[in-house]
Amino acid sequence: MDLTGVFAPVPTPFDDQDQVDTRRLRAAFARWVNGPLTGFVVLGSNGEAALMDEDESDRVIALTREAVPSGRTFLVGTGRESTQGAIKATKRAAALGADAVLVRTPGFFKSQMTNDAFVRHYTAVADASPVPVLLYNFTAVTGVNLLPAAVSRIATHPNVIGMKESGGDLAQITDLVTGTPQDFRVLSGSGSTFYPSLCAGVDGGILALANVIPDACVRLYELFKKGKHDEARDLQQQILPLAKLLGSVYGVAGLKAALKLAGCDVGVPRPPLAPVPESGVAALKEALAACEKVAV
Amino acid sequence: MDLTGVFAPVPTPFDDQDQVDTRRLRAAFARWVNGPLTGFVVLGSNGEAALMDEDESDRVIALTREAVPSGRTFLVGTGRESTQGAIKATKRAAALGADAVLVRTPGFFKSQMTNDAFVRHYTAVADASPVPVLLYNFTAVTGVNLLPAAVSRIATHPNVIGMKESGGDLAQITDLVTGTPQDFRVLSGSGSTFYPSLCAGVDGGILALANVIPDACVRLYELFKKGKHDEARDLQQQILPLAKLLGSVYGVAGLKAALKLAGCDVGVPRPPLAPVPESGVAALKEALAACEKVAV
Amino acid sequence: MDLTGVFAPVPTPFDDQDQVDTRRLRAAFARWVNGPLTGFVVLGSNGEAALMDEDESDRVIALTREAVPSGRTFLVGTGRESTQGAIKATKRAAALGADAVLVRTPGFFKSQMTNDAFVRHYTAVADASPVPVLLYNFTAVTGVNLLPAAVSRIATHPNVIGMKESGGDLAQITDLVTGTPQDFRVLSGSGSTFYPSLCAGVDGGILALANVIPDACVRLYELFKKGKHDEARDLQQQILPLAKLLGSVYGVAGLKAALKLAGCDVGVPRPPLAPVPESGVAALKEALAACEKVAV
Amino acid sequence: MDLTGVFAPVPTPFDDQDQVDTRRLRAAFARWVNGPLTGFVVLGSNGEAALMDEDESDRVIALTREAVPSGRTFLVGTGRESTQGAIKATKRAAALGADAVLVRTPGFFKSQMTNDAFVRHYTAVADASPVPVLLYNFTAVTGVNLLPAAVSRIATHPNVIGMKESGGDLAQITDLVTGTPQDFRVLSGSGSTFYPSLCAGVDGGILALANVIPDACVRLYELFKKGKHDEARDLQQQILPLAKLLGSVYGVAGLKAALKLAGCDVGVPRPPLAPVPESGVAALKEALAACEKVAV
Repeated sequence: MDLTGVFAPVPTPFDDQDQVDTRRLRAAFARWVNGPLTGFVVLGSNGEAALMDEDESDRVIALTREAVPSGRTFLVGTGRESTQGAIKATKRAAALGADAVLVRTPGFFKSQMTNDAFVRHYTAVADASPVPVLLYNFTAVTGVNLLPAAVSRIATHPNVIGMKESGGDLAQITDLVTGTPQDFRVLSGSGSTFYPSLCAGVDGGILALANVIPDACVRLYELFKKGKHDEARDLQQQILPLAKLLGSVYGVAGLKAALKLAGCDVGVPRPPLAPVPESGVAALKEALAACEKVAV
Repeated sequence: MDLTGVFAPVPTPFDDQDQVDTRRLRAAFARWVNGPLTGFVVLGSNGEAALMDEDESDRVIALTREAVPSGRTFLVGTGRESTQGAIKATKRAAALGADAVLVRTPGFFKSQMTNDAFVRHYTAVADASPVPVLLYNFTAVTGVNLLPAAVSRIATHPNVIGMKESGGDLAQITDLVTGTPQDFRVLSGSGSTFYPSLCAGVDGGILALANVIPDACVRLYELFKKGKHDEARDLQQQILPLAKLLGSVYGVAGLKAALKLAGCDVGVPRPPLAPVPESGVAALKEALAACEKVAV
Repeated sequence: MDLTGVFAPVPTPFDDQDQVDTRRLRAAFARWVNGPLTGFVVLGSNGEAALMDEDESDRVIALTREAVPSGRTFLVGTGRESTQGAIKATKRAAALGADAVLVRTPGFFKSQMTNDAFVRHYTAVADASPVPVLLYNFTAVTGVNLLPAAVSRIATHPNVIGMKESGGDLAQITDLVTGTPQDFRVLSGSGSTFYPSLCAGVDGGILALANVIPDACVRLYELFKKGKHDEARDLQQQILPLAKLLGSVYGVAGLKAALKLAGCDVGVPRPPLAPVPESGVAALKEALAACEKVAV
Repeated sequence: MDLTGVFAPVPTPFDDQDQVDTRRLRAAFARWVNGPLTGFVVLGSNGEAALMDEDESDRVIALTREAVPSGRTFLVGTGRESTQGAIKATKRAAALGADAVLVRTPGFFKSQMTNDAFVRHYTAVADASPVPVLLYNFTAVTGVNLLPAAVSRIATHPNVIGMKESGGDLAQITDLVTGTPQDFRVLSGSGSTFYPSLCAGVDGGILALANVIPDACVRLYELFKKGKHDEARDLQQQILPLAKLLGSVYGVAGLKAALKLAGCDVGVPRPPLAPVPESGVAALKEALAACEKVAV
């Protein structure tokens, strides 16, 4: 299973009744699988998994599993607040064809989420999982931090093969890379800082941006791998405005609006999330245009 | 419906297989309903609702509804991350007999949880709910803050009757009390600061402590209402060590351990939460002993 | 020395050349000493001490010492980042007539400011000080938190007589009150929450508000002492809007603008602080008018 | 004036009486000037400037100015909380021979430190300064963040030539680099993340590490400039343990202890800072040994 390069964390389309829109999801995948991406993540943060129930989740997995051809890595987000919930979701995802699962940290009982608690949680999930497990740290949404000291303990588990780190703290990324085994894959979650994160040693990225401009993202990765650092840095700068709009500025709503502008309508986010305002659509249009020039 | 005085946010007992233990739940309620509490909250934070699935939640509501006699207010936690999830949970809770629902803020997409987002979310829930709605702000677990400026807008909805504020920020509590209508009930969630919160104007409390020492909690409330401030302050100080152990120190695990010490075994928390360590049990024993002297 | 009741943390007037304006300072004190305040703090946060050099500080102490009649407690802020700097400032303040010193925590090397570091720092200052010492915790400006666990250790020093806590965390205030000796004085720094802080056990307040509406502040304190809780709470609510404008909203600039509106021109704050904008002046005018009705 | 490559932010030696130790300072500089560093910063955070008074500061500038040969860039930290204080310190430093000044943000009145306040502050300092000005953002000590949006406004001032950013937030570093003119120099303050920061576009670093292992730091920089990214990344990893001990773990105390181990005794930090404990000395010894192997 390839865990290097660029993955798209795909959004979940909803229809006008706020229900999963399977037609749009199929249409979007028909587009995405034509690109050069290593693979896909469904039911991640950008997939609004936190806003969906278990039945919806299962349907999305089943449907997207069909859409992803073999040869592309198919990851499913199965993080839950309880250890038993994460295990159940993991087993269902495996049964539905996930190549591996991406398990976000629990984060509700923040003051109790010590290193030991994380080690216990991930060990139990990895023990029970029929497929390999990736850790997932996204402090900006969970409010907890899966520290390198905990990761280095969990990374020795034979069924734990890597992690996604969505934070942009260079020191932490460096510690993750240096504190885990050579074959443990660290994937960045931030399109705004993909190139310097690669320099810091990550193996690839799971980037909202890759849903919209997959070619540019993969090119950046390949420039880096070929040692063409100046070109990689230039490309990073050119895609930066769009990356920021899809990241810290508008999040999922920005991703969905950008996809619509790019000709792939996946609807609007589920409430309490709101669509981007008109001013945001204009900013996205401009940032997209800048990227399209690049991507030629 | 009485929304003043003291409520217990009851824990959910689990058995050795980490399943809801209905026998223990019934036994615990048989004890609690003998006390002087205004009412009960099931499926709150202390009920580990965040770690339970929808079926488990429904079973707990049904079972506890039977256990709570009329005349006591029966509140059910129905917060979910999505607006439609919160509405569904609210309708099910109402159908199962909830007197009102306590709806914790969504908190996953933190940077998008603006005042406007909260107003939209709670308005939709209150519009759809067959029973009255209480807001619930618990920043320490959600990582978002339902500010007084948003509350004062939501509080005008005819189906929103109050809120629980678990934070201890005196300025914020004061703003909540002064910025909402006279009949909007503000309930404190912190046993450590119950007396000064009453002074700041809250109408009562939903206190983990009330599961363990309900008489002392109600006495404190009544002393305050009678204007016996010195006695109230003394009582607050005597129960403070236990309140802190059940609050910021050990949380749910502390509550369950204290109940076991008090003769009411509700098991241990669901992983990734862990039971309190031996040292914690000793501290709880000491704090309980101090309270028992008081409660005579 | 009386350390109960209400103190004013007086602002430092600057002239049009951004120099200490001794004329205005004398004029302001002539006004303040007519009021019912227990005493005064010079060179606190509201005195912009952080923006002044040592010579200016000494001149302000000398001048205000003359202005404060015996019978009023005269406190001087002497916190510095280094222990030796705090000791030197303390000795100079004592030589210039301070009744006691108010020593803000150092806060620059945040990660090194452990409980042990604070205990060492305050012990050294208290050992060296010719006059009694008060601790001063103001996390919102220093970014460090002098925790109750450290305070209870320092409070046993015979030359440490109390502290000012500017935070509004009810649990922390309660811990300070219960974790220190009976004769250790805890003073609140927040006018917005003065009444509930008194309920939580503080002995008085050092309140920016007391520069502007000293009578109302003292009345609130006396109502509390007489057990007239309902009247105290009402008064607290009436002065709340002004308290907030002088506190979290505009800070020192708000205090100076309010004093000017009240007929006591102490100029504008020293850059990089800026005067309140026009909209702020209007808000202050309205809040002041509400208080004046009360104060009659 | 060269503002690329590696600078050492030199520590200030104190003697057993906690006074500036000029003999040790001269001895240390005799060592440092033999190395390949671009230049030196005196009175930065690592120089404990925040713990020193104005007279001490002036003496250190005068003494080190003599020690630094022409051809090396000599920077002096002159940040103060007040605008007028920063201007005075800047003028004195210029008179004493500073090539440029490094002006840390004010940070005391945190809630008032808006983008506008920073622009006003730095504009006033740059207008008044006889020498070029570098901005300095060190959020971990100041508690405020000089955002790229403010920097891009200030960077247009003809007397502002660059900045030091001590944070490790990749997105922010990227924004600083892309949002400022080509000839505006951005210098990193973090040895732990020097290589990836160079990839993100910084022009060099002001690194505590450069006091201890200047050759390795400069080699890393040169490897990067020559496009030898793999070697640069390897070297970064080898010096990482020492960098962390001098940075987030022990700070100034770690730097002074490491220098002593390396044969350059500059004493211990000024209280309230404390020397590193024995366990820390052992860790430093090990990390140093690892670097010495590299540096051969």
